[in-house]
Amino acid sequence: MILRWGHRPQRDSRLTTHVALTARALGADGIILSDTEDKKIKETVDKITQNWGGTFSFTMGIPWRRAVNEWKKGGGIVVHLTAYGENIESSSVLRKIRDSGKDLMIVVGCQKVPGEFFAESVSNFNVAIGNQPHSECAGVAIFLDRFLHGKALTMDFPDAKVRILPQRRGKRIVSNGRFMRLNSKEI
Amino acid sequence: MILRWGHRPQRDSRLTTHVALTARALGADGIILSDTEDKKIKETVDKITQNWGGTFSFTMGIPWRRAVNEWKKGGGIVVHLTAYGENIESSSVLRKIRDSGKDLMIVVGCQKVPGEFFAESVSNFNVAIGNQPHSECAGVAIFLDRFLHGKALTMDFPDAKVRILPQRRGKRIVSNGRFMRLNSKEI
Repeated sequence: MILRWGHRPQRDSRLTTHVALTARALGADGIILSDTEDKKIKETVDKITQNWGGTFSFTMGIPWRRAVNEWKKGGGIVVHLTAYGENIESSSVLRKIRDSGKDLMIVVGCQKVPGEFFAESVSNFNVAIGNQPHSECAGVAIFLDRFLHGKALTMDFPDAKVRILPQRRGKRIVSNGRFMRLNSKEI
Repeated sequence: MILRWGHRPQRDSRLTTHVALTARALGADGIILSDTEDKKIKETVDKITQNWGGTFSFTMGIPWRRAVNEWKKGGGIVVHLTAYGENIESSSVLRKIRDSGKDLMIVVGCQKVPGEFFAESVSNFNVAIGNQPHSECAGVAIFLDRFLHGKALTMDFPDAKVRILPQRRGKRIVSNGRFMRLNSKEI
């Protein structure tokens, strides 16, 4: 589960949509947009899930503290992605997270997350996807890719209405059981 | 080198900034914002480079075709990231790219890239970071992380004015040679 904190409707609209779609494509089971609502993003993400398959939950408006507490009560742990945390490449933090065997809530914010996010009361681990400033979208992507040993990229999404058939050139999809090859004019 | 196609000033402002910062943090040497200009993004990215070190070029306004042709004339190859391409996890495309030994230009667009991008005249390889829709930011992140075997995440950025000292809790930085530990109130 991903918890996205600090989303500002309008300004962060595209970025948060990308974080959600990345979470889905890289193997997360859902995203919580905490402390705010954005129906347009929910609509976009839910539509992608309907067409491209699988189950991916999109919930919003829950206060972050409640979401975190409920997650922990259910036996899960919280991983806070931050450039200030333990480096995923040079430390053993990823192994420790795997060894816990627990379900993960991955918290991503922005530069101005509450200091509390770093504390034991919230995060079990503070993990840095490198210690340079970059992007919560990239952070979620690399964390999940590494955590799942890259397996999400070949995952099957059940009940998909549309599916890509990977190939060297051009676009090829299966839509409602029908093969389609798009030529360059249709692309 | 990253080539970012299809940027729309204003609407894509934050997303393209994140693509650029991700490229820098994950080991690319620069980004070209093709066919358009956006001085605000350039300013943001250049300022990050000045403060956080290393060299990272940000150029803009060059027509994509010229940028691609000049890159190829210089002996480089072009990798187009697209959900329709060869899957980086299940195919041998990454090995082939590495085996080429050439310098890479990574082209990222959006849903509506010109069909030509898929053709041999432009891309040497069409690579899918999974065959699900997600994000060019995530695509660049995972491609570079895998291509460089994760080494960019511990890379040194020379002449940095500010540097993070990774740790389990809180924030710790070195700024102009001075250690600083930020407590939760200062965070």
